[in-house]
Amino acid sequence: MGGLKSWARYGFLLVGHLLALGLGAAVFQALEGPPARQLQAQLRAELATFQAEFGACLPPNTLEGLLDAVLAAQTHGVSSLGNSSEAKNWDLPSALLFTAGVLTTTGYGNTAPLSWGGKVFCLVYAALGLPASLAVVAVLRHHLLPVLSRPGAWAAARWQLAPARAALLQATGLGLLVGGIFMLLPAVLLWQLQGGGSLLGAIYFCFDSLSTVGFEELLPGRGRNLNPVIYHLGQLALLGYMLLGLLAMLLTVETFVELPQVRALVGFFVPSSPPIAEDQGGIVGQDELALRTVSSSSSMSCTAPPAAPAREQAPAC
Amino acid sequence: MGGLKSWARYGFLLVGHLLALGLGAAVFQALEGPPARQLQAQLRAELATFQAEFGACLPPNTLEGLLDAVLAAQTHGVSSLGNSSEAKNWDLPSALLFTAGVLTTTGYGNTAPLSWGGKVFCLVYAALGLPASLAVVAVLRHHLLPVLSRPGAWAAARWQLAPARAALLQATGLGLLVGGIFMLLPAVLLWQLQGGGSLLGAIYFCFDSLSTVGFEELLPGRGRNLNPVIYHLGQLALLGYMLLGLLAMLLTVETFVELPQVRALVGFFVPSSPPIAEDQGGIVGQDELALRTVSSSSSMSCTAPPAAPAREQAPAC
Repeated sequence: MGGLKSWARYGFLLVGHLLALGLGAAVFQALEGPPARQLQAQLRAELATFQAEFGACLPPNTLEGLLDAVLAAQTHGVSSLGNSSEAKNWDLPSALLFTAGVLTTTGYGNTAPLSWGGKVFCLVYAALGLPASLAVVAVLRHHLLPVLSRPGAWAAARWQLAPARAALLQATGLGLLVGGIFMLLPAVLLWQLQGGGSLLGAIYFCFDSLSTVGFEELLPGRGRNLNPVIYHLGQLALLGYMLLGLLAMLLTVETFVELPQVRALVGFFVPSSPPIAEDQGGIVGQDELALRTVSSSSSMSCTAPPAAPAREQAPAC
Repeated sequence: MGGLKSWARYGFLLVGHLLALGLGAAVFQALEGPPARQLQAQLRAELATFQAEFGACLPPNTLEGLLDAVLAAQTHGVSSLGNSSEAKNWDLPSALLFTAGVLTTTGYGNTAPLSWGGKVFCLVYAALGLPASLAVVAVLRHHLLPVLSRPGAWAAARWQLAPARAALLQATGLGLLVGGIFMLLPAVLLWQLQGGGSLLGAIYFCFDSLSTVGFEELLPGRGRNLNPVIYHLGQLALLGYMLLGLLAMLLTVETFVELPQVRALVGFFVPSSPPIAEDQGGIVGQDELALRTVSSSSSMSCTAPPAAPAREQAPAC
């Protein structure tokens, strides 16, 4: 495959990705624009009605000033409504949820740190904590993957499947299992706990949390009328869900990423070049250098290069 | 190293991680609790003053009703204040930023989709788009890593550095470069553009975006008084910053993750076990199975197992 062809494919991939970004934006615009305008119109109408009915009593900018204060407070998670106890915002379960939100990069809206100390600590904590979390996930992966591999190995042996097909089957099975346990089941539970409402909304919240996009802040806002014990139990349940669910997601993603089919797809867009450098990452083959100094006979790395197509390659060992 | 010892280490790692979560929560609580309570007290005072002065004019729950509506609208990015044009919320630059926020899982607060169509599309788009983005990053990585490897290789050759040391030097250099270009420089620019304000705040915003935690929504909210052209340019600049900056972050993280020192650290917590299964990921050694069928002489995978310590291992090829 010529150099030009692969660069062309690479270019198409990037352009395609940017197009997909643009198209997604257009679809969101089409779906969300009208409801947003409608909500805005409604809000304007309410404000206008309020002003019309009671504007006489109020000095010119008093209401705006109050609204300003109330809205600003909300962006820091401080509520103006109800009898929310003063301690609720940063009681330990809430603080744990916030911290987990930082570590998992979910970052639910509405609770950005207020104080400079909080912002600096958030920076430092994330800078140290995110790599540490990645390391923990890597360790957990080493422990769990052999366990997760067994069903696939059993299927491969039992039905004489090609390794690639068995791998795909296993990855898909894992995906469905994780989706069922961490997306559908919690969504149904949440739906029931909310006493009806919308199942789709519950599914959306679960996906939003697990993908770490983190738009919706379900519990902290709407739980103000709940029994405090139940509210805290709910927070701890959410915390456990975030940590376990995210771990499950990462393991599933890794399993898919290492499928020969996925590697082939990625390899399709990569110009043919010696696998050695990319394979070892970082500096040109630390391991390769080690190999060179120790064994002069071996001239090619024995790892199956990720860039190679999915045909079972017999490494030249 | 005995089986018990490594499980103990593994246990310590997990417990240590959970302790770090708890300690982080306690620190955030200590730093943020008082300011939040103070803000809440301020807000209560404002509401009380308002009620005291003008409460006579207003029927019992009118103000609460209005505040409710206003606050709810804000969580969907609809503003009650100023002369924000109706179209601004989901004009194309805003929609692009939102979509990029989904794809990068940054998820800035305050703009959760309103409509059911929007939520469903968000779900589907993220489910398809996130893996696609990972694939694109993998491809970009294949292209960029050889380029990024050259300084390290040069340094290794020039100063006769051990491969591991050169790799660490290179990774650190890359980290500093990325930090400078994508954190410090934009923060300073942002700081100047804001006309003073806080440099720390600007740095915090940059880190918040790049780590995809996504608490602060700098531009969309505060830009309402800006010239529309400048506002849109700012949005597009933010978009480019998010995409490029995140790519740079991911590449840097990958470079660090593949350092022998990091592998050693991870390997410290993994029980000693045959490297074959874990190494190939997914199903027990697709490549291993291939090896078995093709070459019966080779009894051990030739890859340098990630679980091994950082001593230059000579694989038994």
